[in-house]
Amino acid sequence: MKRGKPQHSPRRGGHSSRSGGRPQQNPRREQRGLKPSAIPQGRWCIGLHAVRELFKVRPGAVAEVWLKQGWESSEDLRQIADLAKGKMSQRPEGLLDRLGSGHQGVAARATQGPEFSWEHVEAPGRHLVLLCDGIQDPHNLGAILRTAWLIGAKGVFIPEHRASPLTPSAIKVASGGAEHVPVLVDGNLTDSSKRLKELGFWIYGLSHEARSTLWQVKFPEKVAIVIGNEENGIRSPLERQCDELIRIPQVAPEASFNASVAAAVVQSEVLRQWSQ
Amino acid sequence: MKRGKPQHSPRRGGHSSRSGGRPQQNPRREQRGLKPSAIPQGRWCIGLHAVRELFKVRPGAVAEVWLKQGWESSEDLRQIADLAKGKMSQRPEGLLDRLGSGHQGVAARATQGPEFSWEHVEAPGRHLVLLCDGIQDPHNLGAILRTAWLIGAKGVFIPEHRASPLTPSAIKVASGGAEHVPVLVDGNLTDSSKRLKELGFWIYGLSHEARSTLWQVKFPEKVAIVIGNEENGIRSPLERQCDELIRIPQVAPEASFNASVAAAVVQSEVLRQWSQ
Repeated sequence: MKRGKPQHSPRRGGHSSRSGGRPQQNPRREQRGLKPSAIPQGRWCIGLHAVRELFKVRPGAVAEVWLKQGWESSEDLRQIADLAKGKMSQRPEGLLDRLGSGHQGVAARATQGPEFSWEHVEAPGRHLVLLCDGIQDPHNLGAILRTAWLIGAKGVFIPEHRASPLTPSAIKVASGGAEHVPVLVDGNLTDSSKRLKELGFWIYGLSHEARSTLWQVKFPEKVAIVIGNEENGIRSPLERQCDELIRIPQVAPEASFNASVAAAVVQSEVLRQWSQ
Repeated sequence: MKRGKPQHSPRRGGHSSRSGGRPQQNPRREQRGLKPSAIPQGRWCIGLHAVRELFKVRPGAVAEVWLKQGWESSEDLRQIADLAKGKMSQRPEGLLDRLGSGHQGVAARATQGPEFSWEHVEAPGRHLVLLCDGIQDPHNLGAILRTAWLIGAKGVFIPEHRASPLTPSAIKVASGGAEHVPVLVDGNLTDSSKRLKELGFWIYGLSHEARSTLWQVKFPEKVAIVIGNEENGIRSPLERQCDELIRIPQVAPEASFNASVAAAVVQSEVLRQWSQ
């Protein structure tokens, strides 16, 4: 579904190299007050489910695995140790705590994550991507990735500033989703949204104040959903990029959907329409 | 929509009095290792949003409000203090921490919550209720309540054992929803499901292994959705009560929906069909 707009090159030189599908580095958490040697740079993943999925999907990318002291007494952790073999080392639980809560005694550093393919979404067919504009809570970002995996979304775009990066906690909450759905970091997301439009995507912004409801929309084959910040919604530069604003109908007007729940409801509706 | 089943009295004597709409008391958290005098029994609610909604919806039910030491320096907490007037007292932050994390310096004890009305759902019309069979995580329970409020669900049923009760943390995550959606506690939920059937409800169980998908169902006017435990799904006694098992279609078969996300997707589809 090509759009009737002026076509620019889909490979603009000015496009941030950070949105080229490279794995995200979680720089904030790792650099915040930690000794440089304590936690090596990389894509850290915590929690049993997330680490198992990493081994399943991308075993060659596992650089090292940390298990908490006393791991031998846990069947789950012994299984991880078997997978990790020479890459495993034992660490104090306090060090794992610094990566994120809920680590269940295990953390793994990967050299890369899933890569977004612009070529893939350029091809005709059904493609769904999400643009998360300033999600602050890593748990929300993780929950969005978990559902995006289930629904088959091709990528999640996040801005460079004022948003949670893909932290180890987000990867944990994603329950394996972070190994399947690429996360791309791009300035304030307007470059990505422009590029998606050039490839034929229709950009839908979720807004409390939209006139159209989710159920009035007839979704095309290439869909990009913009999810706003938990408090303030979508920022103006990106809202201007949206082709259409939509809202999820609700009975209690004074309440608001959690960002990850809103993302799930919209994605599910896209999938429903595509299946009809 | 009365069902063609033998009609029993909708007010059976054997029905647990705890499911009669009385506010839940959060007994577990409050009795676990705390001095009897430290935290009075009651329905404790934490967090700015939840406490504000309590004052908005049920101001007469507020028994007391605790603010953390140093509350005067926060505009949000000063506003709560204005609302609370004579019921307010200052407490060490450590005491608030014992109610639940994320309290934002405020906790309020209520003498009651919203009451479920069997008479209301007995009347003809569109009614949606949820039966949560063993949700372990208070955050999931809270997230389910938040969406249930938005969608206009009439009540959320939870079992007495092996499930998170309505803790202060669940009330916080519900972001006001716990003041609107009654939570009923009932044994293993089979009594409630039988009673709902007698009132004309159709019971849908969410199951990974169901043949029918959510999108194949034509929802009637009275709908009860059964959401299973995060790990093991719906327990057998309750599954046998279900009229139909359904699954949410997903592209990645090896992944699973978070319980609160699954609840949201199904509720939203019910609302969509009702709006057509």
